[in-house]
Amino acid sequence: MQVSQKPRIGWIGTGVMGNAMAKRLFQSGYSLSVFNRSRSKALPLIELGASWCDSPAEVAQNTDVVFLMVGYPSDVRQVVLGTNGILAGWRQIKPEGVERVLVDMTTSSPQLAREIWRILADDGIEGLDAPVSGGDVGAKNGTLSIMIGGKKEVADRLRPLFDCLGENVVWQGEAGSGQHAKMVNQILIAGNMIGVCEALLYAFQAGLDIESVFTSVATGAAGSWSLSRLGTKIIQGDFEPGFYIEHFIKDMGIALEEAKRMDLALPGLALVHQLYLATAAQGNARLGTQALIRGLAAMSGCRLPLSSPKEI
Amino acid sequence: MQVSQKPRIGWIGTGVMGNAMAKRLFQSGYSLSVFNRSRSKALPLIELGASWCDSPAEVAQNTDVVFLMVGYPSDVRQVVLGTNGILAGWRQIKPEGVERVLVDMTTSSPQLAREIWRILADDGIEGLDAPVSGGDVGAKNGTLSIMIGGKKEVADRLRPLFDCLGENVVWQGEAGSGQHAKMVNQILIAGNMIGVCEALLYAFQAGLDIESVFTSVATGAAGSWSLSRLGTKIIQGDFEPGFYIEHFIKDMGIALEEAKRMDLALPGLALVHQLYLATAAQGNARLGTQALIRGLAAMSGCRLPLSSPKEI
Repeated sequence: MQVSQKPRIGWIGTGVMGNAMAKRLFQSGYSLSVFNRSRSKALPLIELGASWCDSPAEVAQNTDVVFLMVGYPSDVRQVVLGTNGILAGWRQIKPEGVERVLVDMTTSSPQLAREIWRILADDGIEGLDAPVSGGDVGAKNGTLSIMIGGKKEVADRLRPLFDCLGENVVWQGEAGSGQHAKMVNQILIAGNMIGVCEALLYAFQAGLDIESVFTSVATGAAGSWSLSRLGTKIIQGDFEPGFYIEHFIKDMGIALEEAKRMDLALPGLALVHQLYLATAAQGNARLGTQALIRGLAAMSGCRLPLSSPKEI
Repeated sequence: MQVSQKPRIGWIGTGVMGNAMAKRLFQSGYSLSVFNRSRSKALPLIELGASWCDSPAEVAQNTDVVFLMVGYPSDVRQVVLGTNGILAGWRQIKPEGVERVLVDMTTSSPQLAREIWRILADDGIEGLDAPVSGGDVGAKNGTLSIMIGGKKEVADRLRPLFDCLGENVVWQGEAGSGQHAKMVNQILIAGNMIGVCEALLYAFQAGLDIESVFTSVATGAAGSWSLSRLGTKIIQGDFEPGFYIEHFIKDMGIALEEAKRMDLALPGLALVHQLYLATAAQGNARLGTQALIRGLAAMSGCRLPLSSPKEI
């Protein structure tokens, strides 16, 4: 057993994604200390053998590499820099010759990632931003796409950990670059989703046979992951979340803020963001992103066919 | 030889698509009469052995099935219903026991397709709308996706002809349904393209290494045909047309007009349409649809990296 030579792992944020990812690390033989705002969500990991900590600071004090998978940039800031945060914990203990790394896997602000990287560096602590795509299925199966920003050599040293979590692990550049790459991912999805939802709504309204249309368009120049997976869900009247609308709104908001900072207008993304806000305002915030079609349908007073009883 | 039992084929509109498609029919053993506004573009087919006709009417008089692949709905109307049009030609000759069919493969208006279908029916002539996707490569290799509207039994009888041209041949419903399905295809592409162009522009501006970003995003939930094919062209600075911006503007205009007729707001498509109009207005109308990124870059005064010398 080489467990003793392995870094001790901390994990903060044990929602659906965090739980599945931390479990993979634990099952690969890493020791695991966990914290979550509500302890109940960490129970599956605790029952597995992970150690519960009462604060992010306590996680930090007991571990060398702390992973973060929380909700919003404000949560990241609080957990890392706040009272009883990770930095506070690590500042109380300075082990000799042990590298300490914070790996933030939350989809968060590139600017915040840079700010945190700089603050940690002052204390001799390394920081990586490493948001993911691939959803709960990818988290469970270890097939996530992981986009890493920060020092390349630090990312390389942590490669065995990342390889437990994902199969498309790519270093994107300096601190914040992982978050930027994730924003690129989300801008692409925003475009795909408006296309899918407007196209299917058009098809419904035109009275087309939706299966026939799918056969014609899904595998050619109009094809996309969003159409194949989420378009199919729409047709089945399935609006269960693979990815919550409210989280997607957060991501698009970050991308628009960053684009503004870069003096870059993104009119398509801005419109999709607004349409998702409207869709959320109609009570759909905790549905999957494919429920955008509900917002669009409501806008024109359309009834969606092939719909579940709870439909508009 | 069963050539005598095969329908005599007419082909009107011998641009890049029409030329390749008509050639496939000719090489499958069908007799071919052709007309094009400018004769020079029909020369490759004439040299192959096709008969030149001086008008659409003359094509009609010499053939049983006439295919159309022209530019705009106004062209379709003129060629079918105008002086020396197909209908005028067929009205002068009424062969016994021979079915006459007009197959319009132009991407055109669903309403016009219905109007033509009704007018033809009054003369005992069948009409099919059968727009395609798959581009010049699909036309050349016979791998097009063909979306057919009109009577199913007519589409079935012409199946051997369609099978020469495409490999994803789907009957979509009554007259106009082929065009509607094509509109669904184009609405999907509009969404994909705004996503691809804004995402890549963001990536350029954020200073990301574009190959690394591609590796992270191209095969996951953000993936699409547009990203893989046209995104790659953008990165290479290749704005050569696979599909002209001016034609895409036409298609989106038709879709918006149809949506208006159905009392359906499509805000995403409307915005993309406007952005393509602006991109065309800047002198890019005869570039490929991927040149939308030029219009977006110009809007924010960005310089595109990885660009050819003619770049903004």
